[in-house]
Amino acid sequence: MDYEKIFADAIEAIKNEGRYRVFADIKRKRGDFPRATRYEGSDNTRTITVWCSNDYLGMGQHSSVLSAMHEALDETGAGAGGTRNIGGTNHYHVLLEKELSDLHGKEEALLFTSGYISNEATLSTLGKLLPGCIIYSDALNHASMIQGIRNSGAERRIFRHNDLEHLEELLQADDPTAPKLIAFESVYSMDGDIAPIEEICDLADKYQAMTYLDEVHAVGMYGPRGGGISERDGLADRITVIEGTLGKAFGIMGGYITASKQLIDVIRSYASGFIFTTALSPVLAAGALASVKHLKASALERDSQQERAENLKSRMRQAGLPLMESESHIVPLFVGDPVLCKTVSDILLDEYCIYVQPINYPTVPKGKERLRFTPGPDHNDAMMDALIEALLDVWTRLGLKKMVA
Amino acid sequence: MDYEKIFADAIEAIKNEGRYRVFADIKRKRGDFPRATRYEGSDNTRTITVWCSNDYLGMGQHSSVLSAMHEALDETGAGAGGTRNIGGTNHYHVLLEKELSDLHGKEEALLFTSGYISNEATLSTLGKLLPGCIIYSDALNHASMIQGIRNSGAERRIFRHNDLEHLEELLQADDPTAPKLIAFESVYSMDGDIAPIEEICDLADKYQAMTYLDEVHAVGMYGPRGGGISERDGLADRITVIEGTLGKAFGIMGGYITASKQLIDVIRSYASGFIFTTALSPVLAAGALASVKHLKASALERDSQQERAENLKSRMRQAGLPLMESESHIVPLFVGDPVLCKTVSDILLDEYCIYVQPINYPTVPKGKERLRFTPGPDHNDAMMDALIEALLDVWTRLGLKKMVA
Ligand SMILES: Cc1ncc(COP(=O)(O)O)c(C=O)c1O
Ligand SMILES: Cc1ncc(COP(=O)(O)O)c(C=O)c1O
Repeated sequence: MDYEKIFADAIEAIKNEGRYRVFADIKRKRGDFPRATRYEGSDNTRTITVWCSNDYLGMGQHSSVLSAMHEALDETGAGAGGTRNIGGTNHYHVLLEKELSDLHGKEEALLFTSGYISNEATLSTLGKLLPGCIIYSDALNHASMIQGIRNSGAERRIFRHNDLEHLEELLQADDPTAPKLIAFESVYSMDGDIAPIEEICDLADKYQAMTYLDEVHAVGMYGPRGGGISERDGLADRITVIEGTLGKAFGIMGGYITASKQLIDVIRSYASGFIFTTALSPVLAAGALASVKHLKASALERDSQQERAENLKSRMRQAGLPLMESESHIVPLFVGDPVLCKTVSDILLDEYCIYVQPINYPTVPKGKERLRFTPGPDHNDAMMDALIEALLDVWTRLGLKKMVA
Repeated sequence: MDYEKIFADAIEAIKNEGRYRVFADIKRKRGDFPRATRYEGSDNTRTITVWCSNDYLGMGQHSSVLSAMHEALDETGAGAGGTRNIGGTNHYHVLLEKELSDLHGKEEALLFTSGYISNEATLSTLGKLLPGCIIYSDALNHASMIQGIRNSGAERRIFRHNDLEHLEELLQADDPTAPKLIAFESVYSMDGDIAPIEEICDLADKYQAMTYLDEVHAVGMYGPRGGGISERDGLADRITVIEGTLGKAFGIMGGYITASKQLIDVIRSYASGFIFTTALSPVLAAGALASVKHLKASALERDSQQERAENLKSRMRQAGLPLMESESHIVPLFVGDPVLCKTVSDILLDEYCIYVQPINYPTVPKGKERLRFTPGPDHNDAMMDALIEALLDVWTRLGLKKMVA
């Protein structure tokens, strides 16, 4: 059995589709975001501008976050030293969980090592605990939700993206006495569109379903305290489970859910992905605590990000570049081909020191390949000028489409 | 549909079995391990001695680890800011992956956010990539391996714990042309026994199977450079995939695999749990890098841990306490009942400021409930004296068994 050959073939298949991934080796410069050092092998380095970070608000370099982390390191050390149950619960976890349940107006919160595992563990456990449960999942849900739903063993219905009629059709067709859960996101991260949360909650009420909302690309960034789209629209109390990450707008790493006391207790007690793993480092928990607190009180970063995103979108429109219109802070630029998408990205990085990763399948559907820009408070006008100029040059050189197809 | 009622019932079921988990809320004291501050609600705190941490060597407070983390925080900030593919690869990841592949003598390594997700993602992806694959899994494998094997969709055979005859029986019964993978651990963390790695490798050769070894409870602690039992026994080159954690002996958080270049590339390119999640914080990667480097060069911590473990075991034997004999640094003490196990732990904590978590089902089988001690370099003789005295007192008061059943 030639295992290596099978692996080589699997890699070859990806290469043939032009979607083999090469990771840019960078070190972001604290105090100088969005600048970073790029390592180009054999000790060559160059300074680049990062346009594709999900540290959306630059909180990863915020002084209050960094001092909280320095302090926690000195106070309690590097790691938690155990699972949450076996010696690994640190007081920072307890404080952060209180802060997060307050942020979303829920009874309790539960931390995970990532947003990925919070989705996987929660959805798979809910599906298992409710015999005969049916989970309704938006067609564009994130891979971590899809995994969780699959692993739950529950019946699964996929509704067309943000399509209320299709969702109702599916709900109506099922046994009215079966337990039901509707799983969806608020801001979809690759297109930047937003779910009709209120209408989905109405359907959930009508068909007695629970609701599970992934606010990973909205927490910290929307709502008067950064509670996400559900806070902005005053709908948090209608959602059964709100899930979020500490790794994007909050600038650190880790994930969480917030919900009723009872639901949190059941996930805490039954979810394999919560129970059987070393707890989040207290250093990260301390940083996240400072970040959440800061963004609860300060709208500066949120407002500035919105302004920067609008600014970049309008520059792109003016320049005649194929902006994919979005309702959020996400700025996707259409390319529509995996090889070209990678070529544009390579030229931008090598010639212009502008870093924006190509987004190819399976992150987006084939034919929808794009560059995805995430301007934030630290992207200034001069950086925007340089970006638009570089894009126009590359678009002309490669004869790229000016229309979204 | 009364969902809250279903959740309440699920919690009630656990409570009725006496295995409802209450997390001790603590803050370990950097510079003073194994001491920690215990928070007892309403701002009451007390200093306790932790006897159940998996920061086995105290590296979570090691000065080289802490300075590396302080430095990384100042240099590059709090979080990675993206998935490994989209802006989140930090130079510290690249350096750490090199260090880890060198540690195990493998071509390459791949980081994950936890040991849990490294097992889940790798096993599930291997099973999916090899059509018709059969996975042979030790009956006592960790939950994260079991999840990965389940999620792979591959055929699954469970062999009795460390039972070579049973394993061979199963291998023999299957189609000789089917791809095969044997998944097992080196040190089993709850009993402290060690797998017959060489004999398992012989069987793998005979039946053309790949081998997957979880060294989570051995890395940093065994082998001249801390490469685990496979290094100690000179068997690393016979293992296809070695998996480890950064969260136990290395004192931080995160997980990894090491293997051939081809295999790593295929997991990197196909594994959902690797691709779709924010990368490990560079601060953690920097700390882990310092920790791995230190333990490669220094045997002091390893030797001292072994001496401390032997010391505690012999004290327990002398005191007539029901030590469950183990071949490793793990010191399990038999109780055999979930309610009593929790009671012992509560008395030790409340009256003696000694913290050792009860280990109940599902972490160990029902009837095998125990206390699990993990003495390390920082547990001194006076702490050992105090521990044995407290245990003897509690054993008498509660009339506990003196024999392992
Ligand atoms: C919608 C969505 N949910 C969950 C996640 C996972 O969160 P984390 O990065 O914290 O694992 C991501 C991205 O990583 C995401 O885009
Ligand atoms: C055998 C084994 N494998 C894997 C893991 C998971 O590692 P981590 O804590 O890094 O998630 C654990 C414990 O947590 C374990 O005991």
